[in-house]
Amino acid sequence: MPRWEPSAEDRLREAALALFLDRGYENVTVSDITDHAGLTRRTFSRYFADKRDVLFAGSDRLPAVISKAVRDADPALGPAEALLAGLADTGTILARNVPRSPERRRVVAGSAELQERERTKLAAVTDSLTEALQERGASGTAARLLADVGIAVFRTAFAGWTEEPDGADFPVYVHEAAAELTSALAPIAQRD
Amino acid sequence: MPRWEPSAEDRLREAALALFLDRGYENVTVSDITDHAGLTRRTFSRYFADKRDVLFAGSDRLPAVISKAVRDADPALGPAEALLAGLADTGTILARNVPRSPERRRVVAGSAELQERERTKLAAVTDSLTEALQERGASGTAARLLADVGIAVFRTAFAGWTEEPDGADFPVYVHEAAAELTSALAPIAQRD
Repeated sequence: MPRWEPSAEDRLREAALALFLDRGYENVTVSDITDHAGLTRRTFSRYFADKRDVLFAGSDRLPAVISKAVRDADPALGPAEALLAGLADTGTILARNVPRSPERRRVVAGSAELQERERTKLAAVTDSLTEALQERGASGTAARLLADVGIAVFRTAFAGWTEEPDGADFPVYVHEAAAELTSALAPIAQRD
Repeated sequence: MPRWEPSAEDRLREAALALFLDRGYENVTVSDITDHAGLTRRTFSRYFADKRDVLFAGSDRLPAVISKAVRDADPALGPAEALLAGLADTGTILARNVPRSPERRRVVAGSAELQERERTKLAAVTDSLTEALQERGASGTAARLLADVGIAVFRTAFAGWTEEPDGADFPVYVHEAAAELTSALAPIAQRD
């Protein structure tokens, strides 16, 4: 019976993250990564376009995935509730499928170039969420504001979740972050 | 008595915006701008580092200016209220001093490079606002969430204000955007 072995893709990702954290993202080449993983450049290019792609592979699909989750939430929910439900669902899938999130976050935080790429990614998610929220009945301005809030809540939830790998399920962090925000906003909320 | 004449800086800015809108930001050179304004490159470099700087001159000061306004708000106000007061004050100053905001917004919206720069600028403001809100008593997570909300409210308010140049004063737009947001969030707000 064969022993379990990590896939080539996982080995390349592990190697890349270890090197990025050790030497700094800017100082690591694709050859460094393949050498460290004991694999070829050819294998690398089967999974990743370049070294940045190790950190952002699949992120092009995120806007469509999140906005679909918001669109598909229970039709009885209003825009804000559908937003939270969609974020909770998407995050649960991401949390299962994005390996090494805490390490990835630390690498991104250490590089201006990667932070810029991360913001570009989130801006695309915001645009896509805005459309989904308009389809769910939010006005243009409210939809954009809610989308911005959604990104803020999602990032907070994801940070909390990655910092406590054995903690609660992802949706709990989404609802905690949303509760923290609405509680902080209570003093300026409209009183009916 | 001399006639009133726009300053060299204003003439360069007008020329740059007209050309950016006409030909697209990427297709305009500094020489195009100086030719169009009837001024020299030497004069240009007295005011601007490069063509992008025409759109972002002074924005390095924005994080410090906004966070100071939040720190200096009435000590009786809680973090969220101090945030709105600070945004209203800063926006009022910006609205008076940033020429050609609507044209600038259209140019930025048309260029991926400029949108990236704009996001970088706003990220610096978010960091600075987060610190100011912590100093005003918000917890780390709440401070960051409120800072994100502040940016969203500020952008909405500024967009509304620039689209109606003869409309209400800037603080009115801040409070309208905040009211729209808290009303959209009401269904998920904590009920005591």
